[in-house]
This record gives sequence, structure tokens and C-alpha cells, in this order.
Amino acid sequence: MSSADPAASSPLKRFRELTGRMKQYEEILGLVYWDMRTGAPRKGIELRSEAVGALSAETFKLSTSAEMGELLEELNKPELKASLGVIDRRLVEETTKEFERNRRIPPDMYREYVVLTSQSESAWEEAKENNDFAGFVPYLEKIVDYTRRFIELWGVKKTPYDTLLDMYEPGLTTGELDRLFGELRERLVPLAERIAKSANKPDRSFLTGEFDKEAQKKFSKLILKEMGYDFEAGRLDESVHPFATGLNKNDVRITTRYLPEDLTSALFGTIHEGGHALYEQNIQDELANTPLCTGTSMGIHESQSRLWENMIGRSLGFWQNYLPALKAHFPGQLDDVSAEAFYRGINVVEPSLIRIEADELTYNLHIMIRYEIEKMLFNEELSPRDLPEVWNRKYEEALGIRPPSDALGVLQDVHWSGGAFGYFPSYSLGNMYAAQMMAAARQDIPELDEQVASGRLLPLQAWLTDKVYRHGKLLRPSELIERISGQPLQSAYLCDYLENKYKDIYRLE
Amino acid sequence: MSSADPAASSPLKRFRELTGRMKQYEEILGLVYWDMRTGAPRKGIELRSEAVGALSAETFKLSTSAEMGELLEELNKPELKASLGVIDRRLVEETTKEFERNRRIPPDMYREYVVLTSQSESAWEEAKENNDFAGFVPYLEKIVDYTRRFIELWGVKKTPYDTLLDMYEPGLTTGELDRLFGELRERLVPLAERIAKSANKPDRSFLTGEFDKEAQKKFSKLILKEMGYDFEAGRLDESVHPFATGLNKNDVRITTRYLPEDLTSALFGTIHEGGHALYEQNIQDELANTPLCTGTSMGIHESQSRLWENMIGRSLGFWQNYLPALKAHFPGQLDDVSAEAFYRGINVVEPSLIRIEADELTYNLHIMIRYEIEKMLFNEELSPRDLPEVWNRKYEEALGIRPPSDALGVLQDVHWSGGAFGYFPSYSLGNMYAAQMMAAARQDIPELDEQVASGRLLPLQAWLTDKVYRHGKLLRPSELIERISGQPLQSAYLCDYLENKYKDIYRLE
Repeated sequence: MSSADPAASSPLKRFRELTGRMKQYEEILGLVYWDMRTGAPRKGIELRSEAVGALSAETFKLSTSAEMGELLEELNKPELKASLGVIDRRLVEETTKEFERNRRIPPDMYREYVVLTSQSESAWEEAKENNDFAGFVPYLEKIVDYTRRFIELWGVKKTPYDTLLDMYEPGLTTGELDRLFGELRERLVPLAERIAKSANKPDRSFLTGEFDKEAQKKFSKLILKEMGYDFEAGRLDESVHPFATGLNKNDVRITTRYLPEDLTSALFGTIHEGGHALYEQNIQDELANTPLCTGTSMGIHESQSRLWENMIGRSLGFWQNYLPALKAHFPGQLDDVSAEAFYRGINVVEPSLIRIEADELTYNLHIMIRYEIEKMLFNEELSPRDLPEVWNRKYEEALGIRPPSDALGVLQDVHWSGGAFGYFPSYSLGNMYAAQMMAAARQDIPELDEQVASGRLLPLQAWLTDKVYRHGKLLRPSELIERISGQPLQSAYLCDYLENKYKDIYRLE
Repeated sequence: MSSADPAASSPLKRFRELTGRMKQYEEILGLVYWDMRTGAPRKGIELRSEAVGALSAETFKLSTSAEMGELLEELNKPELKASLGVIDRRLVEETTKEFERNRRIPPDMYREYVVLTSQSESAWEEAKENNDFAGFVPYLEKIVDYTRRFIELWGVKKTPYDTLLDMYEPGLTTGELDRLFGELRERLVPLAERIAKSANKPDRSFLTGEFDKEAQKKFSKLILKEMGYDFEAGRLDESVHPFATGLNKNDVRITTRYLPEDLTSALFGTIHEGGHALYEQNIQDELANTPLCTGTSMGIHESQSRLWENMIGRSLGFWQNYLPALKAHFPGQLDDVSAEAFYRGINVVEPSLIRIEADELTYNLHIMIRYEIEKMLFNEELSPRDLPEVWNRKYEEALGIRPPSDALGVLQDVHWSGGAFGYFPSYSLGNMYAAQMMAAARQDIPELDEQVASGRLLPLQAWLTDKVYRHGKLLRPSELIERISGQPLQSAYLCDYLENKYKDIYRLE
């Protein structure tokens, strides 16, 4: 059966129209969320949340509509499916998966959930500002409760938490993740201990002081441009919790948060979100306005933010090139600092309370704590009320420090307020993916390190576009990493990378 | 039949749900438009416009759906209608009118039109920037063509242009407007001539110079606060063409445009939009999320912007109080200027090219030109291509000056790029409504002028809230002005006000 056959092209056309419309609604909802986080007036949030609930419910309704069911049934018939091009085939596959998931959720329940999460993000912001976990707990309890009910409806995989993991990293299991995290722990904990014992502590006093906010903003923008971020297809704003959002492939927005006393927080935050944004800006045009026009998994998405933030942004070569420009933005404040000293200063390893400010090594411990807590919430029915206690205890055990307040502890991350349970592991997966990709990039581009050290970041960006970005969701994460490196995801690349990096910085034996 | 009867309450409930959802979609679309005008990345506009088209089409579909038709039929049955409360009855009435209008437009046609106007606003911005009328004309031709077809579908009232007028000022006719504008012309043109001959020309040289943008912004915000604008239920941004938009009653946003060389442009622009915003922020809570939660007509809406901008913002008393604060924002720049001199300087009457910068008197001539041109477009089939020539000729006739470029001529206003033909008369209607309201306010609050002169603007705001704002669309414009002043709209109040004001400023006999 040829795809020119009208009987075949007609359901495809209607399917494309329907999925296109859903994507357009999601684009608009994305803008509303962006606005809520970057400056929507406080008093308007309540009515806005209701409006978001209404449009989300409509989008959800479309995704589970009888029309969608009929179209998918038609398009999944072997002879018709065989006639589809590669994009359409993958589109049908992804939409079918979504359909099967969503139709198990009663629409009213979904709508209530959307209104809840939309309000609870504001509640979280307020709770964090006032160190008021009790004020946030009613929201959190409801969100956890909804999530538990969703898991029931979707069907429990090996464990309830496996059901959540699969949403962010398709195919990943707690078994696999326990193994990967176990391997990381085995090599990284001894590394952290050797570092703690090292007498060669880098100085980083020059990173704190008074750093003009406008200069921070200017330099952040400069680096984004160097990475190839297109400001005509995006913008940089401020929000409490930095994020990137691809509204459409030509409107991919970043936010950051400037701390006047801290030189690196906004800078590395911006590079991080910039990595996410490069991914979304460089998806091929053919995928625009389809559900495939986004990252293929959260782990792969985080690999791009973490790759740019850490493997490029915290590399010696990068600062050999960009330190003079940074000095020019803060005259008189960094005069005596060499590229080598700067590099060592921004790579200090030290147990700390805040995930997004953690070094590359202990960062993975922050993730493991959240992973364990999330497993407890869904596999062992931990009560949200007990989160602060569990959180503080685990920080004490794993990092040796106890948060002095919930604002610096369990309230620090936005994720749970939006119901994103199962997301956190993506960050460590991202670190592993990124290390594995960088190894492949160095093979393909032998002069890569020299390029970075002379401020030519675009060849790497082009390589990533070719290998990762342009494919959007066309390739699954496992296909992507196999194609790039010839192997499934490994923990070894990340461990090798970190050992080499810190051996040098801490002069380890 | 009691309203507690389940057979009666059920259609009402569904009707409320449906109109509520439409209002929510409009709220979200309003946010998208706000974003497009205040900083959305250029490259993203094209896909965004498609998304706007999709959601507008859905909203439109709801407004003309079979369900809506059935509900309205039910709710318009006399016995059921009689059982409705005042809000629901008016809601049914307004929605029925909307339904009757919209169902004549084929949905595909409407969708194409929305995409077109959404793109054409960006095209207009570019055309204005590059003084490129030819680049804008293809858009304009299409918009005019759609509008002409809409008029056919809606049904031509006395003239095709009457059909458009009725949209912005329900019940208003070209006959009535010709009469009102005729009366204005009869008294205001001689006044302008006497002013032109006056030897007492106020000095306004102190209004131009170099005025720090941040200080302008700060002072604009101060005045907005004094007027009672609630910054927790709104925000102030920048856009090429200033506007106010009530997304919901707790999120009413204003934009302005700062000209570094001009002290008054942003200031009076902000007060103008602030007047619109006060209206929307102070609608009673009971109307929230219904189609009645907005101004009752564009003329009444403009009465609030023009009242605050001109009758308050350009009054002597206002500056007797606020000039010291203005001076403090621009140290050394206005030291020698007295309140009296400032008042005279900001009220100079002089033919000029740009409507939004025109004085209160000649402003009405700018409106009359547009009114005549719009009548020609729709009642005499003037071709959009010929607009610059007609525009320039009319400016020469009415104001004695010929625009040196289309950017300063026919391209200056955003309205036509959005298809808002028939809107312009609202500004002069607003002037007339405002003068009539102010006369009533002075009767109710004898100490009004003393209050303004001592910086107490809130009593006037409270009076306007009681008489105008809180009613939203519950009262028709004609009901509103009758209730306030005991009369229908008159031109005399505006003429009296302007004659008195300029007699004083120009020391006329």
C-alpha cells in the first residue's frame, strides 16, 4: 500500500493535525509556566492556575480522545505502519505509548492534578522563602497521593517507583539504576576520601565578594553566544529556580539567578541551562510542531546541560581562553588569578547542602539521596511529613553535614512541587552519558581540546547537533548512546573522567 | 420556576462552565499576545502564531458549538430567563449576541484570520521601523478583505462601517457619530484657531533634553501607585506601542515606551494605560472568569484612560502636588520650572503628526481623520494601497502638516494590523464620556479638585470604581452614562472643559 493512497494518507493527515494541535497547546502552556516563574503578578496566579488547568485538561482530552484511539488503531495496522516514513512511524509509536498511559487517568482527576501542581509551585516558592515546610506539606501530600494513584492506574512495574523512572528515562529500571549508582559509589566515594585527605586544597576565596549583577549578566550572555545559543530564538531571564524551556524550536528560553556575592552560581547555572537550550534549538526542522520535537529523555537532556556546564565550562582549556574576558567584566577583582588557579578554584570538592551548587563529584551523592528518598516515598510509603527528618539524616550520613534549615534542605528543589518524582536520577545519568559522549567526540575530533582552549566551541556544538540534537526524539536514548559510542551506558567513563580531573587538581598519587 | 429546580440549574451550570472555559482560553491567549509584544524572540513568532491560531479557533468553536446553541436556546426561554439572577441574565444576553455574530463566520476562515493578524502585527512593527509601507500592504489588504467579508456575513447595518462600530460601542451609529463629531468640530476648530493666534505661547523647552530612562521608569511607577494601580495584580513593561491588557482581574498588565529625549511621552502613556488598568483591576469579584469581566465598551474604556491621562494628569492641581517629586527624579533638570509653567508646557496645543503625542484638543482631529478613512475603506471601497496618499492629504487639510514619511504617517498606529477597524472613534467618545463623568464626580465630591491638588487620588478612584469599574460589562455604556449623569452622551461637556482649560492657558478673551 503506497502512502499516496488516499485511504492511507487521510488518517495520517488527521493524526498529524491532532498531534500538532496538542503540541501547540503544550507550547502555549509552556509559555504560561515560563511567565508564572519569571514575573507573573502574585495575585493573578490563582485564576491563572485555573486557566492552565482548563487548557491542560483539553490537551489531555485530545490525547485520549476516541478520535485519537481510532487513528492510532488505523495507523498501527501492519500494512499501513509499514508504509509510513521514519518520522511518522516513530510519531505513531510515541503517541500510542502516551495514549495508553493517559487513557487510564480519569480526565477530572488529571485536571485537578494540574491545578494543584500549578498552585503548589508558588506555594513551594513561598515556603522556601520563609523556611516553612509545614506550609508546603499539604500540597506535597496531595501531590504524592495523586502520584501514588497514577502509578496504580498506569500499572506497577517491578516496583511502583519503576513506573515513574520509565517516564523520564524510557526502559530504565531501579535494578539497573541501583547497579549504576553502586558502581559510581564504589569508585567515587574512595576518590572523595582521597581528596578530603589531600594537603593540596585549591584556593577559591576569589570566587566570593561583590560581583556586579549587570556584569554577571553580560558575561553570561557572552558565554551563551560563544556556545552558539541563538538569542533571536530565545531569551535569558531571572527566576528563583533556573530552568530552560523549549516552547518551540525557535523559542527556547533560559532563566538564571544572580547572586551578587557569588561569581559562579549564575554563570554555571546559565551554561547548564544553555546546554539544555542548544539541544532544543537544534532539533531538525522536520520535527517542528510534533511531539518528537524535544529531547529524547531527561537523562540525555541533562547530559547536554552537564556536559556544557562541567566538561566544558569547568575545564582548564575553557578558562585559558575565557578568563581574560571574565577579568575584563570585573575590573580589579580577579587580576591576580591565573587560569590554572581559577580552574582549581571552581573545581573544589567539598560536601555541601545545595545540589545545584555542588561540585561535580559530590553532586552524584546529592542525587543518590533524592533517589533513595523517592524510592522510600513510593516503594515504602514514607509519609511526606517525615521528609525533613529523613532528608537531614541522609545528608548527615552521606555528606557529613546536617541542613540547618529546611530552606537549605528538603525545600531547596522545585521538582517535587511540580510532581516530578523520578526525575532526579536523570542528572547522574546525564553525567554518565556526557562522559561517554565526550570520549567519542574526542575520537571524532582529535583537536577538540585545542579548539576549546582557543575559544572555538562551535565544532563541538556541531558534532553534538549531528549526533544528538537534530534527532530530537527520533532515536531512543539507548539507540543514541549506542550509535555514538558503540556501547550501552557505562559508569566507567564518568569515573575515569572524574579520577583524572581530580588527580590533577588535588595532586593525588 | 425556581432557580433551585434541577432542570433549570443544570443548563445554567453547564453554560457557566462553557463560558468560563472560553474566558480562560482568552486569558491565556492574552498572555501570548502580551509576550509577543514585550519580548518574544523574533524567530519563534511564526510557530507561535500558528499555535495562537489553533487555540483561538478552539475558543471560537466553543462559542459557536451546538452545545452552546442548545444551552442558549434553553436559557433564553422566558420562564427560565426570568428565574436568572442579574449577572446570569446579562451573561446570557451578551453570549447570545456573540453566538449570533460568530456562528456566521466559517471556523476555517476565522482561524486563517487569527493567524494572519497575529503575523501582521510583527510585520507592522518591522514596516514601521523601516518606513516600508509596501512591505506591510499585503497584510493590510488581506485584513481589509477579511473584514469586508465578515461584514457581509454579519450583515450590513445602515452602512458596512456601522457594523464595525457596533462591535466597539454597542448601539452607536455613523449617523450619531457624524453628529457628535460635527458638534465637536464646530466648537473645537474655532478654539484651535484662537489658540493659534494667541500671543501667549507657553514655553515647553524644558520637556525635551536627556531624561534618564531608569528615573522615568521610577517616576511612572510612583504615579501608578498613587492612582491606586496594584502592582501585585499587574506589572509594567516596555513595548513599541503601549497597551494595557486585563488577563484576569488580578493580572492587569501595562506597557509603555521610554523616549530618552522626551519627558512626557512615557509618563502620560503610562497614566493612560494605568487608567485602563484601574478599570480592569476593580471589576467586582463576582464577574471574575465570565465574559462580563471587562470594560463595557471601548469608548467607556478609553474614557478611563483619557480621564486619568488628561483631566487628572494634565491638570494644574496634579502638578502642584507632584512636580516636586518629578524634580527629585531628575535633579538639576527642572529646577526653575513652576507648577504653573509645567502645566502650561504640557498643554501646548499644536498640530502634530503622531496621535499618541497629540495635545487634548487636536487629538480629536487625529481621530476624525481615521474615522473618515475607515468609512472610506468600508463604505467606499478605498484600496489599502492608496492609504498613504489619502492619509497625507487629510493631515494636510485638517492639521496643515504633511507627514514626511509613512512611519510618521499611516504606519504609526498598531490598530489596523490587528484588524481593529472601528476602534479609533472610541478615543474621542472616551474624551466625551470622561468630561461628562468628571462633571458628575465634581458634584458628588465637591472637594475633588483640592484632593487632587494635595495628592489624594484615591477618592476619585473609589468614586470611579463605584460608578464605573465594578460593574464591568453588567451595565451597557448608555445605561452607565445615564446613571452617572442623568443624560445620554453629550459633546458639550468636553467642549466646555477644553474651552475653559485653554482660555486659561492661552489667556484667551
